Amino acid sequence: MSKAEESEGEVVIAFQPHGRRDLFSVGVSLLDAARELGIDISSLCGGKGLCGKCKVKVVEGAECLSPPEPLELRFLTKEELEASYRLACRARVLAPCKVVIFVPERSRIGKQRLQAEGLEVPVMRLNPAVRKYFVKMSPPTLESATFDDEMVLNALAEQYGLSGLDFHYEVLRFLPKVLREANWEVTVTVWKDTIIDVEPGDTTNRCFGFACDIGSTKLAGFLMDLNTGKVLSVAAKMNPQVMYGEDILTRVTYVMQNGWKGLEDLQRAVAEAINEMIEECCQKAGVKPEEVYETVFVGNTAMMMFFLKIWPEFVAKAPFQPPRMRGVNLPAREVGVKCHPRANLYFLDTIGGWVGADNAANMIVTKLFDSEELGMCIDVGTNTEIGIGCKATGVLYSSCASGPAFEGMTIRHGMRAADGAIEKVAIDPETLEPTYRVIGDVKPVGICGSGIVDVVAALLKSGIIDWTGRFNKELALRSKRIRLGPDGLEYVIAWREETASGEHDIVFTQRDVREVQKAKAAIHAVASILCELHNVTEKDIKVLYVAGAFGNYIDPESARTIGMYPEVPLERIKFIGNSAGTGARMALISVDEREHITKAIRDGRIRHFEIAAYPKFYNEYVSSMYFPHKDLKRFPEVVELLRRLGTHPEIEEALKLGTKR
Amino acid sequence: MSKAEESEGEVVIAFQPHGRRDLFSVGVSLLDAARELGIDISSLCGGKGLCGKCKVKVVEGAECLSPPEPLELRFLTKEELEASYRLACRARVLAPCKVVIFVPERSRIGKQRLQAEGLEVPVMRLNPAVRKYFVKMSPPTLESATFDDEMVLNALAEQYGLSGLDFHYEVLRFLPKVLREANWEVTVTVWKDTIIDVEPGDTTNRCFGFACDIGSTKLAGFLMDLNTGKVLSVAAKMNPQVMYGEDILTRVTYVMQNGWKGLEDLQRAVAEAINEMIEECCQKAGVKPEEVYETVFVGNTAMMMFFLKIWPEFVAKAPFQPPRMRGVNLPAREVGVKCHPRANLYFLDTIGGWVGADNAANMIVTKLFDSEELGMCIDVGTNTEIGIGCKATGVLYSSCASGPAFEGMTIRHGMRAADGAIEKVAIDPETLEPTYRVIGDVKPVGICGSGIVDVVAALLKSGIIDWTGRFNKELALRSKRIRLGPDGLEYVIAWREETASGEHDIVFTQRDVREVQKAKAAIHAVASILCELHNVTEKDIKVLYVAGAFGNYIDPESARTIGMYPEVPLERIKFIGNSAGTGARMALISVDEREHITKAIRDGRIRHFEIAAYPKFYNEYVSSMYFPHKDLKRFPEVVELLRRLGTHPEIEEALKLGTKR
Repeated sequence: MSKAEESEGEVVIAFQPHGRRDLFSVGVSLLDAARELGIDISSLCGGKGLCGKCKVKVVEGAECLSPPEPLELRFLTKEELEASYRLACRARVLAPCKVVIFVPERSRIGKQRLQAEGLEVPVMRLNPAVRKYFVKMSPPTLESATFDDEMVLNALAEQYGLSGLDFHYEVLRFLPKVLREANWEVTVTVWKDTIIDVEPGDTTNRCFGFACDIGSTKLAGFLMDLNTGKVLSVAAKMNPQVMYGEDILTRVTYVMQNGWKGLEDLQRAVAEAINEMIEECCQKAGVKPEEVYETVFVGNTAMMMFFLKIWPEFVAKAPFQPPRMRGVNLPAREVGVKCHPRANLYFLDTIGGWVGADNAANMIVTKLFDSEELGMCIDVGTNTEIGIGCKATGVLYSSCASGPAFEGMTIRHGMRAADGAIEKVAIDPETLEPTYRVIGDVKPVGICGSGIVDVVAALLKSGIIDWTGRFNKELALRSKRIRLGPDGLEYVIAWREETASGEHDIVFTQRDVREVQKAKAAIHAVASILCELHNVTEKDIKVLYVAGAFGNYIDPESARTIGMYPEVPLERIKFIGNSAGTGARMALISVDEREHITKAIRDGRIRHFEIAAYPKFYNEYVSSMYFPHKDLKRFPEVVELLRRLGTHPEIEEALKLGTKR
Repeated sequence: MSKAEESEGEVVIAFQPHGRRDLFSVGVSLLDAARELGIDISSLCGGKGLCGKCKVKVVEGAECLSPPEPLELRFLTKEELEASYRLACRARVLAPCKVVIFVPERSRIGKQRLQAEGLEVPVMRLNPAVRKYFVKMSPPTLESATFDDEMVLNALAEQYGLSGLDFHYEVLRFLPKVLREANWEVTVTVWKDTIIDVEPGDTTNRCFGFACDIGSTKLAGFLMDLNTGKVLSVAAKMNPQVMYGEDILTRVTYVMQNGWKGLEDLQRAVAEAINEMIEECCQKAGVKPEEVYETVFVGNTAMMMFFLKIWPEFVAKAPFQPPRMRGVNLPAREVGVKCHPRANLYFLDTIGGWVGADNAANMIVTKLFDSEELGMCIDVGTNTEIGIGCKATGVLYSSCASGPAFEGMTIRHGMRAADGAIEKVAIDPETLEPTYRVIGDVKPVGICGSGIVDVVAALLKSGIIDWTGRFNKELALRSKRIRLGPDGLEYVIAWREETASGEHDIVFTQRDVREVQKAKAAIHAVASILCELHNVTEKDIKVLYVAGAFGNYIDPESARTIGMYPEVPLERIKFIGNSAGTGARMALISVDEREHITKAIRDGRIRHFEIAAYPKFYNEYVSSMYFPHKDLKRFPEVVELLRRLGTHPEIEEALKLGTKR
């Protein structure tokens, strides 16, 4: 027993999964204890019990805590109460004892989540395509002279049992020189069956690779040690293709207008940014770019086409057929990527339509197609891709244009997730006053995607909007935050004097709500249709993987409240961060991972379903426009919450009608 | 019976292998009959029985011919007489009858020989690496949409049973465009397992390749139809690398002095000439260079290194280890060869040391390593390569610097085989007067390789030089053509007034004889050692393949007389012309040929022997300096000839001593 645990009159609180614990005085709130230990738990309202973001599960010692307050009951569902969930800000320890608290992922703040995902990746087998071998040979004599190439191949066979190799023709150019200058002691670099370099001496410990996720907005790059599978350094950049169009279709149009030259423009822009990332990563890790022997890239179908200079016109037109299914190998230098002169570039497989290699990477990470349990993987962005399935059924993938709403683009005061963006919002149902958090802890400038989802959920929970998304104009009488603006009714999140510019109030309008409604309806409809195609319901989803930085920051409860995600218990939601980048890293260090995913796609165990062609889609889309859904039976927990809050008479009405029928 | 054969009082003469026949009057000489039929039989002396070049074999009707004259007996060996050989100029038909004459290859003139070898090549199997397939597909719909690449691959599988193919990544770039512009009816070009092009419509009948022999002096190129295996057009050029050095070692030195840039200079020079040949061939045949989908090259080890930009320093230094054994595949464009943008370039295997892909090509043509009978293949040039062996023993290959003598370089009035070069020479043993033939039927300028071999043989037969190569100064009393010059004694082949310049006599000096002696001794010593290593004697050689344009022009009897070739019966000598080019063409249209030769070399069934390291070489070299050889038993027929001519008392003496011992 540790000293902490044997003390009397004091409280031991342990936090999982962090594994941190310490002694606290009786009366401490769980939130204060967590903060003292440096464990960041989401909280917007500053511990007033108003935002409901700080839910934690009490694993041990529940009996020593203060009983749940009425404030808490607003945010906790019956299931959650039964499972010992509490708001960390309201629950206090009333007696000396040991308390063990589990902080669910959704209650951790984004920053921690990203760190928590870790940079080391578990793969099927550490098996990079590139390996180095040190060989020693006896210099040839007149009697023993054969051929330079055969000597190296024989040495590799004798010393390492390798066979079936051959040289990249360029290596033959300097092979005679390097063998003799190195006195026949050289390191041979092999990519698959091809010898791509021969260097003097033993450089086997210098073998690196670069993995990269090309997002339409952001690029993320990772320098990895191929001998250990570890990440050495990381870099991120904006995708400079935004110069040619914020969204993908604008970029495709740019190519249509400028022809192959236009495609070259897009390509050069991203290649230059990638080279800067490679340089940055290399500099951080003390590696030379020429020591990077392979690169792996992922990105959606359009990103692949722009990067590999594939004519992109037709994937933007019905029937949206992409050019390529299988992963593509090519010399990195052919698309201007500067690393080892004979480095390979591997772009992962496309699943179908707009569902590209980034989602293939998500599948590498989640292995949904190998899973015994039904799962769903969602990657939210301007385009949202959703895959649902398991080993028995295979995974069906589809995508929808979730619109630029979540990128903040069609929203009155929307903005990207940068400093000054309101990223979390809660509204007190009593006072209708908001609390919010701003990225960078500065005065607010606008509202970003996660804030947008939060504000819609808060507007709904507080009854400011009804289940059809309409503002309740009656409430304008109760709060001056609800008022008529140029776009109809609107809610003031921040008065101008609170804002960075001081020039205008930050509002969320009726029109903004409509934009979010369309986006969330499309997403939910896809998930719903995919379930139907598998003959399952949303309730059968045992795990919901939320991929992508954006999905990572969205409050899952808010997303579920507005009916954007299916109503799966929050415990089943797993945040996998930038799993496209993670999958790219896994593919970089393991050829098995590449082959495994390629086979799954070729065998149809992961397949694309073109939802635009599906007759039931439009009906489901319209039903999904409701908050949370026209069919309330699909969201029993959300309905229970809204009824408890008492803010939605129209839902009570609908339920009555439903019962009567 | 044809009209010709039923006539009475007249003679039917048929010539083989030409298959031409006609009626002639009694009394006609075989040479005149041949000329009337347009069959070119070698003859220098104009039918006077002085040069002995017009030997033919009488297959039928020997009894109707004039009996052999004493003049003929000078040139015909006992074996030849027994086999019904005659000089065509002396043998006349004395009675009406049917005469069938076989004109051995050595008696045909060079030009005909080259034509005779033909441009169509018999290969194991017409199986080019490149094939075209026309496919039709149904345009995708929303319901059927998959991937562009998969549609093409599936169509190839369904319509042609092809599997395991994939696309060159560049084809993916324009694939979406071409498929739709061609309304899903396209021709797919496949190199091995790689799709290197997709074109609209059906272009399957347009599939071409280019084969090229890179000689250190000359380049020969052949445009071929890969669908039929036929040669469409031919081009030849001087190798512009001669700017950087007449011989290979000078070129290597140029690289040593100028580094990689120097190597680039050599490479660019030859690549430009090759591109000119491709253009010329294409123009002649109405083909576009972009329709040339594969190229195959051969050349000696140095030519390979200069062309593929491989550092050439060490193959020029002991232990002369070449960089590469196996054939090399690379994109043609990487070495500046302009044809289809994704055309492959294949450079054939190296046998070892300086014995390069040109000799691998010779082996493709001769299949010596598959032969039941022991054979020898000789490729005479500045460097002479010799391979000896058969299926049971494998083929041993070695080479020697036969010096530039045969290129005419170290010979007083030597020159290349161009217009004005004396190419054939005979000397009347009685008068010591020469007869000669000049290329282009112009006045002589100098003497080329084949003339050089002829003149030495003629000097020997007429006794002007003895078996040690020394001029017989006594004969200066009998003929003013034998005289003292600045380089010792010399023989005047052409007086200045006969020559093109009219300025100086064309002579052959004592020093010139010494040069030829060294060259022929090296060649014979290699052949002799290779026989010894196989435990056979030169007599066991059942076929002697003479490869290369130069070897083709050398009079084999002259070569045998001076002891340059082993003394094999002349019937066993086969001229295979530019068989390096032929082998390259065979490899171009048949992957089987490539694999067969690669396997033979890898399995050691064709292997290189470094003769410089062999202790007995020097002794054999010294013995081979004699004409024909110090060991006269090795050349019984030449000895018999020289004894019959009565011009060599020193040989009689040596034989007596030999008998006594």
